[in-house]
Order: sequence, then structure tokens, then C-alpha cells
Amino acid sequence: MNPFDADVLRDLLARADYPAIAALCAGSHPATAADVLEGFSPEQVRDILRHLEDQLRADIFTRFSLDFQVDMITLLKRREVARLMTDMPPDDRADLFKSLPEDRRQVILPAMAQAEREDIRRLTAYEEGTAGAVMTSDYASLHPDLTAYEAIERLREIAPDRETIYTAFVVDGNRRLLGHVSLKDLIVARREKLVGEMMETEVISARVCDDREDAARKIQKYDLIALPVVDGSDALVGIVTHDDALDIITQEHTEDMEKFMAIAGSHDTGAYLRTSSLEHFRNRVFWVTGLAVLGLVSGFVIQSFQGLLLQFAILAAFIPMLAGAGGNTGSQAATLVIRALSLKELSYRDVGMILWKEFRVALMLGVLLGLVAYSRVMLIGDGASIPEGFTLHQIGSAIALALALQVVTSTLAGAMLPLGASRLRLDPAVVASPVLASFVDITGVVIYFVTVKLVLGI
Amino acid sequence: MNPFDADVLRDLLARADYPAIAALCAGSHPATAADVLEGFSPEQVRDILRHLEDQLRADIFTRFSLDFQVDMITLLKRREVARLMTDMPPDDRADLFKSLPEDRRQVILPAMAQAEREDIRRLTAYEEGTAGAVMTSDYASLHPDLTAYEAIERLREIAPDRETIYTAFVVDGNRRLLGHVSLKDLIVARREKLVGEMMETEVISARVCDDREDAARKIQKYDLIALPVVDGSDALVGIVTHDDALDIITQEHTEDMEKFMAIAGSHDTGAYLRTSSLEHFRNRVFWVTGLAVLGLVSGFVIQSFQGLLLQFAILAAFIPMLAGAGGNTGSQAATLVIRALSLKELSYRDVGMILWKEFRVALMLGVLLGLVAYSRVMLIGDGASIPEGFTLHQIGSAIALALALQVVTSTLAGAMLPLGASRLRLDPAVVASPVLASFVDITGVVIYFVTVKLVLGI
Repeated sequence: MNPFDADVLRDLLARADYPAIAALCAGSHPATAADVLEGFSPEQVRDILRHLEDQLRADIFTRFSLDFQVDMITLLKRREVARLMTDMPPDDRADLFKSLPEDRRQVILPAMAQAEREDIRRLTAYEEGTAGAVMTSDYASLHPDLTAYEAIERLREIAPDRETIYTAFVVDGNRRLLGHVSLKDLIVARREKLVGEMMETEVISARVCDDREDAARKIQKYDLIALPVVDGSDALVGIVTHDDALDIITQEHTEDMEKFMAIAGSHDTGAYLRTSSLEHFRNRVFWVTGLAVLGLVSGFVIQSFQGLLLQFAILAAFIPMLAGAGGNTGSQAATLVIRALSLKELSYRDVGMILWKEFRVALMLGVLLGLVAYSRVMLIGDGASIPEGFTLHQIGSAIALALALQVVTSTLAGAMLPLGASRLRLDPAVVASPVLASFVDITGVVIYFVTVKLVLGI
Repeated sequence: MNPFDADVLRDLLARADYPAIAALCAGSHPATAADVLEGFSPEQVRDILRHLEDQLRADIFTRFSLDFQVDMITLLKRREVARLMTDMPPDDRADLFKSLPEDRRQVILPAMAQAEREDIRRLTAYEEGTAGAVMTSDYASLHPDLTAYEAIERLREIAPDRETIYTAFVVDGNRRLLGHVSLKDLIVARREKLVGEMMETEVISARVCDDREDAARKIQKYDLIALPVVDGSDALVGIVTHDDALDIITQEHTEDMEKFMAIAGSHDTGAYLRTSSLEHFRNRVFWVTGLAVLGLVSGFVIQSFQGLLLQFAILAAFIPMLAGAGGNTGSQAATLVIRALSLKELSYRDVGMILWKEFRVALMLGVLLGLVAYSRVMLIGDGASIPEGFTLHQIGSAIALALALQVVTSTLAGAMLPLGASRLRLDPAVVASPVLASFVDITGVVIYFVTVKLVLGI
């Protein structure tokens, strides 16, 4: 088998050798084929897809990025789209359907069979970000009164249409979830053993409205192949699989990082290059401008202490260090707390313990940075600019104390704000690092000038 | 079955009802049992573990955090440890072994059987962070000349000792990897079909020295249950499973976020509360102090332009906005590039395209922030403090231009530095956001004062 890459495909396309292209696609992993194809124009890809078998076409199409899928759909005939979507896994099909423009949806839906129409309606009904919105309806279910042998036979029959048969869910007549059984256990068991006897009844499951990240974390914690999703009446309606969990966790992490850096917008994978400059600008402009305005507020504070600055010119030299130390220590505390909250290591009930811990850390950092500032003043402080009646030691102590106070308040703010957000059921990552830094800039300059005034007795 | 929680367990422990505790443990998912037990003292847990069956004990023990495992080991007798570790999955056993103090290792190793000793030696030989260091040796392998029926029989026999039998790897006499076959395909196939005929020969695999994150990403991309790991002579030596991939990706995320916020130290899950204040201090102090010193450098620059500041007092009011805008736009660009690099959407070959895109985004942001600053000067600029011969318009334009230049250079630096790090085969996340912010603070004040001087012709 030849390796499948862009150069090979370009050659074959030039010769319009579609049978050879189809053979290459069939011999490769669909993810590999999708990778190579996505580098070509939608028109070229359409011509290639038309030469593939139905299932292979759907397998490759499913691996395209959602944007590329939507582009492709507009190039295909109504019948072709209906056939393609019929062969797609239900969860990916529902995702694609949600991304199509309304008029396109209205055209495609009637071209599909009743069962698929219903399935799309059901899966697209759940709110984005829930377990319901990411689950697939292609799960394997069994009745408890089957024997192990019969169960394996049944799984063998339904295998081609199921996302996985390695975990089968045992349901009663009302589809109420009773337990689950793994194909491994079925194979190892005596042939005549009943599914109902051997099934695991402590079922880990999610509800349709649960957060999709919580569902993914359950898959991680319990090493599951598939997590069953039940509705309000405990009836099994779908599963979330281990590969979905990986994608969910990756996406949530991108989202967390971008939120934390105050970047808005879509968090799909593969988004950076596909997003236009104007879109990138729009995703960043809101916060960048907002933070610039906060920066102006710090500026006002500095301006209002102009008299003090003119009297003690050395004070200006410590403003960048003050702002930096506040932003950095605050953001570090926020990062640790946000990450621990997202991994469910902490909850807002631990607030006392966290603040006490961060207070001690901040005190150590604050004292150290205070000493650095004090040394800087004593070693290279400019004696000439100090007004009559004040000593370098006094000024150094004032600056050191202000810096230590700033570090402690910033660290506590950095730890407390994500906890507060989680208390309010907001995503802790909304307390973005730049926002935190800009806020502690403002409190920092106030703390700085007020402390210096008090210590120097002005 | 009663629910298994800390209160129930406390009651049972008070009555020393170990048979009831053992029944509860057996009826729960090992991850649930481990969660509950980890809330009790190592001594109590030791007494409970002693009342469990061998395999159940190992299943629960494996789910404890590594720290708790190490604590427990010191409480157990040499023979008990050897038996426990024999029943653990090879990859978790190797991780535990690596975490034990040297003297403890020397005591335990001789108490284990030859096969396990060899296995531990092999698995602990690979460097941390590689696929070799996370793989397990409990994979299922088949010979190509077995029939589907024989293959299923073989998998049934070895199932209890294997991490997964859902993907079986086909090897020749020298353990060279020929292909793989899924249990699903074996079950669906005709009984007499040969494994060698039905196996998938386009095998996605990793090498022992590959980065563990790359291995996890392959599992994600190709939706694998297990990724085979081969040594230098293409012989199969282990597998990385889908649940390992989830743990690897979660840990790498935590590591990326902490690195990006300039936090050092261990990135194990569950680390926040277990880490002492002093340890937290140590993980943050290096960068916080280093960055504070960089802040002092900015301070020196400001001090050296003291004359200009005294002449145009309004300039001081824009320093926080300048520093903030540089840090924020630079960090945003760095975040997007680092994330895209880590998801393999970009590589340093895209440098031209990325810089051009970021340049356009930065130009838009720079012009906008310049306008904000200009308006601020014109609207509330303090006319009184402007020296003879200069107009507000001149000063506003100078500040606006300086700000725009700062945003463009910071954004380009934010995009370029992670690309440079990746070019040097360093983790792009070493270009931590606070470090970047502190650097562009320094370049920012230089750009600011020099631009203002040039524009005002001083």
C-alpha cells in the first residue's frame, strides 16, 4: 500500500484517477484520509467523495472539521446530503445539523428517513454544553433475561450500527437502566449464565442536562468505555464514549485557557488559522479595550498623587515592580485555584483552608519582595532627591511594606475571586488573569501611595 | 446494597465490622471505594485492605493517589507489599516503584517473582514523559495464523490478566508488530477466517521514546482503545490505553497552565491541598522574584527619563495603560499560538502566516487603543502642565503612536517567542505570560519615551 499524502493525491487528481484515490482512501485510517483531503478544495473533495463507498464516505466526512463539513454540504445535492448524513454517527450528525443554516436544514430534513429525522430532532434538543448535546444514540442495549451466549449473538448482529459494543447496557421494558455488562465479561462467562445475573448494578451514569465536562470526568475517573446518559425518568437515551471524553476535555481546556487570557470566541479545535484577522480582532478587542480603560484608572490614581511623586521622585521607579508583583502573584493563585476547581479537587467550601494557605504563601513572597525593594532603595537609592527630614531607611521601609501588602491582597484576591465565581455557579475561569492584573494595579497604586504617606507621616 | 460513604464506613470501623466493610468495597466501583478510603488514616486503611481479596485490594489500591500509595506501602509488611504489587497493573506498579525511596525498593524487589521483577525493571527504564514510561505490558497479542474462533478463545483465556482485550495486536515470532484486530471484528467475522487475513495492517503506533502527549493525541485522533508502543527494532513492548490518554492530557493541561503562569513544581492531580505552604512558596518564588527584578529594570528606565516626566507630568498617567496593553495583547497572542502548537494545528513553519495574521490583528488593536489614549488626552488632558510651545494635540498623538507601536511589538513578540521555543525543541509554554508581560514592560517604556521625544522633537 502506498503512503497517502497530499503529493500522491495531487498526482492522482491531475490524472483524474478516481479508482486509485478510492483505493488509497479505503486502505487508510479515515482520520488520515480526512487530514489529507482537507488540504484540497471543497470541489475536489466532493468529486473524490462521490467515488467512495457510502460507509467510507461517511467515515471520512465525519473526521473533517465542522467548518469544512458545512462548506462541503453546500456543494452536495439534497439526496447526497441525506444519504451521507444517514451514514454518519448520530452525535456527529446532530452537531453538523446544528451548524447548518436554517434554510438548508429545512431542505435536508424531509429527504431523510423517519428514524433519522426523529433522531436528529431528539439529539439537537439538548442545550449546548450538556451531556445530552454530546451523547450518541447508537448504543448497545440488552435484556436481562438473555444468556451470555445469546447476548454475544445479539451484539454481533447489531455491531455494525453501534458506536461501541464493548459495554452493553441492560434495560427493562421501559428502557429503564438496570445495569451494564462488558463484552469481556460476556466472553469469559459460562454460555448459559444470564445477563441479569452477571451485570454490574452499580451503574455510573449522567443525566441529559449534566455538564458535558462532568460526564467526561466520570469517564476518566471510572476508566469507562461508554457512560450511559439517562433522562428525567431514568430511561436510557444515549451514551458518551471514551473518545468523546478526550475531545470534550481538550475543548474545555482550550476554552479555559482562552477565557483566562480574556479571549472570546469559538474554541473549536483547528480554529486558529481558519479564523480571519478581523474575527481574531473581535475576539480580543472587548477585553483589551476594557483593560486599557482600567489602566487609565490606575493612571488617574497616579496623577492624583502627583505632588507626592514630585517630592519623592524615587517612588515612580517602583510602580512597575508593584504592578507586576501584584498581577503575577494574583494570577498564580488564581491559576492554581481555577485548575483545582476544574479538576474537582476543591470546592468553595474549602474557602477557609485555601485562604489560610494562600495567606501564608503570600506573606512569604511579600516579605521577600519587600526585602528586595528595601535593598534596592538602600543600595542605589538616589540620596539627592530625598527631602529634608527623611532618611533612605524610612523610604525603603515604606516601599517594602506597601509592596508586601500589595502581594498579600493580590494573592488573596486571586484565590478568592474564582471561588466566588464558582459559588455563583459561574465558570471560575471568568476571573481572567489580565482582568485580575488590571484590578490589582488599581488597588496596588492606592495601597502604595497611602502606605507611603502613612509611614512617612505626610 | 447500601451506599458507600465516609459516614457508613466510620460506623462500621467503630464496630470493627470488617466483613461488612469488605462486602461494601466489593459492591462498589474500586474508584468509589478508593475515594472513600483515602479520607481515613493509612493505619485504618491498612486494616481494611487486609480484609479484602487480593485482586480487589490491588484494584482499590491502584486508584489511590500516588502519595497515599507511598504512605501505605511503608505501613505494610514486605510480603504484603510484594503480593499487592504483583496484582497491580504493570504501569501503575512501575509508577509506584519509581516513587518509593531507594532502600524500600531494595527490600521489596527480591520478595517478588522473577517475571514481575523483570517487568518493573523494563518499565521503569524509560525516561519520564515518554510513551515507554506510561505504557503497560499487559496487552493482548495474537498470531496471524489463528482463526477468528481460536483468537476469541485465546482472548477469553488471557482476559483476566490483560488491561484490554478489545484491541489485540498481531505479532510475528520476533514480536514484530504486523497489525491489529478488534474483538468486534473477530466476533463479527466467520469463525474460520484467519487473523492474518482480517487484521488492519495500517497500524498507528508510538515508539518508546516518543513524547507521551503525542501518544495520547494519537489515541484521540484515531479514536483508539489502545495504542501499541514499539522499540527500536519494531518489536511490540507495550500499549497505552484510552484511559491513560485522558490522564496524560489532563496532566499536560495542568502543566501547561502552570508553566504559562510561571509556577514550578509537581503537576500531579490532587496536588493543591496536599502541597504545603512552603512548597507552594518554593514553586512560585523563583519567578515572582525574577519578575520583580525585571520590574525594577522598567523602574530604572522610567527614572532615567525623569526629566521628561517632570516636564510633561501627564505622561506618567499612561504608563499603567501602556504596560497593561502590552502584556495583555502579547499574552493573548502567546496563548493562541501555544495552544495551537500543542494541538498540532500549527508548527514553526507557519511562522510567516502567523506573524502576518497577528500583525493585522495588532494593527487594529493598536489603532483603537491609540484613539482611546488620544481622546483621553484631548478630553481631560491637564492643559496647565503643558510647557510653552506644545499643544495637547501633539502630546496626544505622540502617546497614541507610542501605544500603537507597543501593542504591535508586544503582539508579535507574544506570537514569535513560543514559535522560537518550539523551533528550539523547547515547550512553547516556557514563554510564560508573566515573563512576556515583564519583558514588554521594559521595551514598552523605552518605546514610549523615545517615541514621545521624537514626535515632540525634544
